[in-house]
Amino acid sequence: MKVAFIGLGNMGKEMAPHILQAGHELTVYNRTRSATDGLQQLGARVADSPADAVHEAEVLLTIVADDAAVKDVIFGTTELPGAIEQLAKDAIHVSMSTISVALSQQLESAHKAAGQAYLSAPVLGRPVTARAAKLWVLSAGESKLIERCRPLFEAMGQGVFVVGDQPHLANLVKVTGNFTIASVLETLSEAFVLMQKSGISPLKFLEIINTAVFNSPVYDVLGKMIAEEQYEPAEFKLRLGLKDVRLVLEAAESAAVPLPLASLVRDHFLSGMARGDGEIDWSAIGRVNASNAGL
Amino acid sequence: MKVAFIGLGNMGKEMAPHILQAGHELTVYNRTRSATDGLQQLGARVADSPADAVHEAEVLLTIVADDAAVKDVIFGTTELPGAIEQLAKDAIHVSMSTISVALSQQLESAHKAAGQAYLSAPVLGRPVTARAAKLWVLSAGESKLIERCRPLFEAMGQGVFVVGDQPHLANLVKVTGNFTIASVLETLSEAFVLMQKSGISPLKFLEIINTAVFNSPVYDVLGKMIAEEQYEPAEFKLRLGLKDVRLVLEAAESAAVPLPLASLVRDHFLSGMARGDGEIDWSAIGRVNASNAGL
Amino acid sequence: MKVAFIGLGNMGKEMAPHILQAGHELTVYNRTRSATDGLQQLGARVADSPADAVHEAEVLLTIVADDAAVKDVIFGTTELPGAIEQLAKDAIHVSMSTISVALSQQLESAHKAAGQAYLSAPVLGRPVTARAAKLWVLSAGESKLIERCRPLFEAMGQGVFVVGDQPHLANLVKVTGNFTIASVLETLSEAFVLMQKSGISPLKFLEIINTAVFNSPVYDVLGKMIAEEQYEPAEFKLRLGLKDVRLVLEAAESAAVPLPLASLVRDHFLSGMARGDGEIDWSAIGRVNASNAGL
Amino acid sequence: MKVAFIGLGNMGKEMAPHILQAGHELTVYNRTRSATDGLQQLGARVADSPADAVHEAEVLLTIVADDAAVKDVIFGTTELPGAIEQLAKDAIHVSMSTISVALSQQLESAHKAAGQAYLSAPVLGRPVTARAAKLWVLSAGESKLIERCRPLFEAMGQGVFVVGDQPHLANLVKVTGNFTIASVLETLSEAFVLMQKSGISPLKFLEIINTAVFNSPVYDVLGKMIAEEQYEPAEFKLRLGLKDVRLVLEAAESAAVPLPLASLVRDHFLSGMARGDGEIDWSAIGRVNASNAGL
Repeated sequence: MKVAFIGLGNMGKEMAPHILQAGHELTVYNRTRSATDGLQQLGARVADSPADAVHEAEVLLTIVADDAAVKDVIFGTTELPGAIEQLAKDAIHVSMSTISVALSQQLESAHKAAGQAYLSAPVLGRPVTARAAKLWVLSAGESKLIERCRPLFEAMGQGVFVVGDQPHLANLVKVTGNFTIASVLETLSEAFVLMQKSGISPLKFLEIINTAVFNSPVYDVLGKMIAEEQYEPAEFKLRLGLKDVRLVLEAAESAAVPLPLASLVRDHFLSGMARGDGEIDWSAIGRVNASNAGL
Repeated sequence: MKVAFIGLGNMGKEMAPHILQAGHELTVYNRTRSATDGLQQLGARVADSPADAVHEAEVLLTIVADDAAVKDVIFGTTELPGAIEQLAKDAIHVSMSTISVALSQQLESAHKAAGQAYLSAPVLGRPVTARAAKLWVLSAGESKLIERCRPLFEAMGQGVFVVGDQPHLANLVKVTGNFTIASVLETLSEAFVLMQKSGISPLKFLEIINTAVFNSPVYDVLGKMIAEEQYEPAEFKLRLGLKDVRLVLEAAESAAVPLPLASLVRDHFLSGMARGDGEIDWSAIGRVNASNAGL
Repeated sequence: MKVAFIGLGNMGKEMAPHILQAGHELTVYNRTRSATDGLQQLGARVADSPADAVHEAEVLLTIVADDAAVKDVIFGTTELPGAIEQLAKDAIHVSMSTISVALSQQLESAHKAAGQAYLSAPVLGRPVTARAAKLWVLSAGESKLIERCRPLFEAMGQGVFVVGDQPHLANLVKVTGNFTIASVLETLSEAFVLMQKSGISPLKFLEIINTAVFNSPVYDVLGKMIAEEQYEPAEFKLRLGLKDVRLVLEAAESAAVPLPLASLVRDHFLSGMARGDGEIDWSAIGRVNASNAGL
Repeated sequence: MKVAFIGLGNMGKEMAPHILQAGHELTVYNRTRSATDGLQQLGARVADSPADAVHEAEVLLTIVADDAAVKDVIFGTTELPGAIEQLAKDAIHVSMSTISVALSQQLESAHKAAGQAYLSAPVLGRPVTARAAKLWVLSAGESKLIERCRPLFEAMGQGVFVVGDQPHLANLVKVTGNFTIASVLETLSEAFVLMQKSGISPLKFLEIINTAVFNSPVYDVLGKMIAEEQYEPAEFKLRLGLKDVRLVLEAAESAAVPLPLASLVRDHFLSGMARGDGEIDWSAIGRVNASNAGL
């Protein structure tokens, strides 16, 4: 397939090579051009703008930082034309970024008006998972479109969950899934402070609950990050954690669903921002709880 | 070893048989005598009171509902003499109930004054885990005492975590571990309400996050209980969930550690009590979140 | 002065007459034209659009429902041209609506670019206070502009607080002031549920705390509304209360200030929305707390 | 009347003189004897123990720090016999301390069994209010008993609210009233941090909301304490504020009423304790919110 791939950040740069390796024709675009060098060497064409990137594409895959970045790429900026202007009729924009449910609905509408197709396909997994092509893809939209894109999903990941036929439902599942992960961060950081002040090693406590209760690699990873207080380099920046929880709160507000745990997590991330910890790892939420306990 | 076992409730009735099967001499006592019948048939002696039960015991194992029940058993009531009166010098009381850190400290002190030994050894696991002798024992206290009891722990469970040399630290780990489980209940119940109101099956959402993120049998069990709304028979009653979270809040207050997530969970369990759901399964916390979202 | 007044809702319809009564020339505009009849009879000119309204105005006063309404009025819609197109150079737009700090900053910028002046002047008071010309005006902006508008403020209210020289600071004070009022609603509604379930009349409790502690007419008004459960007609709709607390949370997020009490109030108003109580009085937050206590 | 007065702390030492001044015979007792000197000079008899104090008393007034202090005074300690042993039949114990609803119920029961009478009469007011005999008394119990004690209440305060015929209801109103005051502290401290980070003087904000909205002397007092950050000498110690909010949470738990705002306040006071601020004024809750916003 002729594929355009926009967004070569932490996740994108690990995902795009798999498209090439699966034998597809790849055109890439990234705001910072240097990120495209590796892929160029692997045979990808480097575009000058989002509009240029989708020139002959059957499928456009986008994975960028947030709503604002997606809007710039699709609708354009004063400097660069957006992809929606050049994307062929019936070509598919597959949005893989963690964006708001509202923007996903807006994109669905805009592409429809332009005679183009649209799918949401956010992913679950970390950069190392993307590198190993072990991501899980959450997709939603017309099933014919999902089937057309399945080879691409299978190149990048280990499986696809079809959430429903409205694209924004995949975004809802994604942000809610992220909420369940952030909740573990909050839980463990509260528990660890209690352990620490009581003279019990947080790592010992983590070993106990993960061996005896959870048996979850994610608990192990997140727990060690909090306990070891290794906040740099940030695997996932705290300010992006805040952005993330804001997305689930907005989606929940639209559905008139209070999420008090998400509100608590949001307030703690905001406190982390206030302390100047926006650029370090989101496990630094532990510092907020530690500080509140006099540590 | 000559072992006395007091408390044949959901957990105790599954644990006591393993002591007999490991070849030890077992005396049992339970407030409701009929619960002792099965063990009597297996060869245990049935005592008439806690004091009678410990008559020749080297080790007393207790696993009863709460602080009040432990106090009745150890210190006695107006009707029945307590175990502390008859427990031999240097015999060990191993307290396996989920009790407050404060009571554990009080027991340590009282047994010391009486020339007896004391260990905390609360367990992690459900009744089915106890039946299969797959519990995890969290122990704390003098290491010589732990070693003397290790054969009993290994008869009942799959392993022992030694938390520290002060018995109450094991109780602290136990109630904090229970807090991390209650937090999952809260997280999933908030997420499921959002899914439900958005037309996505909570079980589908659970499958996604457990396959792609957590890979935890506990998430599967807890999630299904909330999603399927099967609250009876109660595996763990909501009013005991409330008691549990109160234990961690008390322990944390003594350490001057705020646990805002535990406060939230406590307020939701209390709401469940107010709705008359105290006797059904603690996964009914989901009804509180559902109600708050208009379901 | 030649004054244009846009927005004749609950507050505006009580405020605009005072401008006429103070001897100024008044042109009015309201989306629903019939609301202008009374003022027309008093001598005001009725405009056909926001742009038409400001035709010769030295000062434009706007007081409409929310950000979206202000944007429609100032920037126009596909149907009607906005005021910014026709407002004379150096004429002053005085924004009195409860809007976001962000929009206030955007208006300041837009008017500056258009050679016009801008002040924020949200008010504190209820419709009955506006009728009696007893409002308090919170103003911020260039002091010369405030002085030019002072005669208008004094016609509508009993005093002016100058908050600072940046207009958006008045909006910040306004939304934060509203937060302190919403907090009283939450406090009293929690307290009243406890009283009610304990067999003490909430009105009796209110009398006690207001006589012995607060001596505040606002406590009396808000307390009676909750206790008497008279939610219709709504003096201030619950969905506007939700909008309001969202404004302070957004402003606080920009300043990296967590407001956990505001988050709690927001979640309760959202629960009220979920129960279908969006159109009744915001004191219906009491029903959320009552429901959570099994009432 | 022959009156015994136990407890000459911040409140008691201002209240007791009014009993003498009203012409009654007064016997006093205080754990720290030196506090009785002033009253001795005014004509009071100084007792050697609580039991001694009530020797001929018709009414015993107690106002001490907390549950533990009341229990020591009434039931005695190993060193000193308690008042209940010597209080005459049909003499009335009027408990004016801020105690738990549970202890109040226990006292009612114990005095009944001893053939004595019992009333709760906690007070609302600060030490300066007590000095001016302007306290408000919240009383509950048998109305005949209240009438017998009314002359004493009128000597010490400006009025009596009769809450009901069960004594513990007065304690419930008292702790819930204190909760409404603590809520103002939390509200103002959150608002002030937002003002401060935005360049607006908290005192200016306080002036605005108290002039335009609340008109409450209590808002003025509490607000100034937070804004001026004058935490010493403590008018009301933070650790007593924590104890207080714990009392309302316990009472509410018995009634199955969640009080999420009280849980929030409690967690903030606990954080204050963790920071070592237990002995300074409870308005130091402001430091918790300030710290969480990076100040």
